[in-house]
Amino acid sequence: MPKIAIDAMGGDHAPAIVIDGALLAAQDLGVEIILVGQKNVVEQELNKHRGASKFDIIDASQIVPMHESPSVALRKKDSSIKVGFEMMKRGQVDAVVSAGNSGAMMALGMFVMGTLSQVARPAILVVVPSRGKGTVIVDAGANVDCKPHNLVQFAFMGAIYAERILDVAKPRVGVLSNGEEEGKGNELTRAVSERLSAASLNFIGYVEGRDIFNGKVDVVVCDGFTGNIALKTMEGVASFASEVLKEAFQKNLSSRMGYLFSRNSLAEAYRRLDYAEYGGAPLIGLDGVGIIAHGGSSPLAIKNAIRAARDAVNQDMNRHIADALSAADGLAGDKKEGLPRKLWQRFKSKIESLGEKDEASAETDRLRGSGE
Amino acid sequence: MPKIAIDAMGGDHAPAIVIDGALLAAQDLGVEIILVGQKNVVEQELNKHRGASKFDIIDASQIVPMHESPSVALRKKDSSIKVGFEMMKRGQVDAVVSAGNSGAMMALGMFVMGTLSQVARPAILVVVPSRGKGTVIVDAGANVDCKPHNLVQFAFMGAIYAERILDVAKPRVGVLSNGEEEGKGNELTRAVSERLSAASLNFIGYVEGRDIFNGKVDVVVCDGFTGNIALKTMEGVASFASEVLKEAFQKNLSSRMGYLFSRNSLAEAYRRLDYAEYGGAPLIGLDGVGIIAHGGSSPLAIKNAIRAARDAVNQDMNRHIADALSAADGLAGDKKEGLPRKLWQRFKSKIESLGEKDEASAETDRLRGSGE
Repeated sequence: MPKIAIDAMGGDHAPAIVIDGALLAAQDLGVEIILVGQKNVVEQELNKHRGASKFDIIDASQIVPMHESPSVALRKKDSSIKVGFEMMKRGQVDAVVSAGNSGAMMALGMFVMGTLSQVARPAILVVVPSRGKGTVIVDAGANVDCKPHNLVQFAFMGAIYAERILDVAKPRVGVLSNGEEEGKGNELTRAVSERLSAASLNFIGYVEGRDIFNGKVDVVVCDGFTGNIALKTMEGVASFASEVLKEAFQKNLSSRMGYLFSRNSLAEAYRRLDYAEYGGAPLIGLDGVGIIAHGGSSPLAIKNAIRAARDAVNQDMNRHIADALSAADGLAGDKKEGLPRKLWQRFKSKIESLGEKDEASAETDRLRGSGE
Repeated sequence: MPKIAIDAMGGDHAPAIVIDGALLAAQDLGVEIILVGQKNVVEQELNKHRGASKFDIIDASQIVPMHESPSVALRKKDSSIKVGFEMMKRGQVDAVVSAGNSGAMMALGMFVMGTLSQVARPAILVVVPSRGKGTVIVDAGANVDCKPHNLVQFAFMGAIYAERILDVAKPRVGVLSNGEEEGKGNELTRAVSERLSAASLNFIGYVEGRDIFNGKVDVVVCDGFTGNIALKTMEGVASFASEVLKEAFQKNLSSRMGYLFSRNSLAEAYRRLDYAEYGGAPLIGLDGVGIIAHGGSSPLAIKNAIRAARDAVNQDMNRHIADALSAADGLAGDKKEGLPRKLWQRFKSKIESLGEKDEASAETDRLRGSGE
């Protein structure tokens, strides 16, 4: 039974909603759950539920707030996120799930676990609702500036995820671009497209923003800047459209009655459109399983994120990724990169400006040394 | 009364829908309309309507299909788009409107009219529905690779458009990025943000994809690659969501009744969300007024595109843009650029591969000479 560490302190409504979600997961998913967080706070919350005895609690004295910068989070030695990853590093758990600060999850995940040796940069993988089984977007925001081989690796990782976790046979992989015709795209997408044409993937070429939803493609590859824009635009449209529809239903007696008659079907439709409910965005490429849930997750979304963690463990996802990328060596770039130099310099100057060249700083030095 | 040339042959349902839209516009907007296209086809269509006598028809023997490459369209000497722009060049009309091939509109607009002398590259400006009066996105797809001064010019042009055409006082200008915090963004957005901080604009910094809709910002600035991704993603979500809702309403007797009661209010909501109805995307920065309507435009959308053309003429938009950019000289880059070298090389090789070093090619040579 996979052992999964849950960051009890992460998310907009932690720890209550997180624990509700963990209880759902424990009931249905066949996983062993370990809650990580401030022990007294977590115990107090757990005591409200009868299922309390099911969970081990591991104490972590510090919290990473939602908008704390990753460089500050990296210096906290006893945060719930860091303690979770350290347990995974020691083999005490198989996966870490958090609805907390995603930048800190990424930074601490890389810091404690590192990446698979075949992967230059891990990415955030998100599954959004579509006409099919959902569409994988990778990178959804981790890497702003990418090289072609980064996107080639994202393509392989996304395809493995679609195949192994979403159960899509021969997933269709496309590069997100501003048009499908030849001659479209920018320098990055053209280079990636050329390499992917030679890869052992079901590569279908360029896809556009609208193809994310129409069932034409299973895995959409892009840099993290573009992926973030697409994802946030999606959220924005959905939220604006649902407000406008709500106003429409409140408009007059007839529309209010219409709402009463159709609300059950509509609620189901809304759930189908709510990508947060699809649960868990994996930090794909990490040497371990780390899953980010949306900060505003419902208990069901937390449960779905835990399901994503369980499936990644049970399907041995990382071994498949490592195998696929080893087989594609050369094509996907054969050298591991360190932290991008600029990011590193920013980390370093921030850490030093805090007046301590301490253990954390020494560790980042070590990290950098192993990278570049 | 502004004189507006309408490309009667452009759009998915031309000429019928275009002429319906032109008739609406002639009724309500106080404009003089000239239809450009294959005279016999246009006359035949016009004869179906009683308002036929209102319009002059200018014959243009060639059509630019929706997906023809701009370099091919550039070689057609008598296309409805080209003839429209040539009439504007000669001062016979004040604006050109087309629901046809947008790449060809851009290419022929630049070819025949050129840009304002203060503008390095024209952009496609789109207004999307939002909590406010609509949000301006510029560039929505014309320029894939941009330099910082391009985006600075887009910011000024977008602000003038919001102020003069949408009647927004002190429009808030933001740069589209992957997060609002400092340290987010890519090389381009950081450089642009720095310059705009020093500009005489109401610059509010970085905005995210979701802010396009929530009324936080009036003008969103980005390169054309990013803008296209945001816009197409928007279209994709909207179309997917409306399909899912449609299915929800058809689900059972209760939901079907609900639809009957609420359909009027819903239809109004859908219209509010349909950005195509917002009409016309100006080719902003052109030395003239060129408006692109969505290929699938309804007659109402065509009318709205004609309204955008009329307003740009009546408000003397280009003079305001020229003044603002002249005043901001240095900040927005003070040199005009030619066609980007790569684009030029692609044009040239395509034109030459057609086996004729002809007039069109000579003209592009001239165009290039004047640019670089």
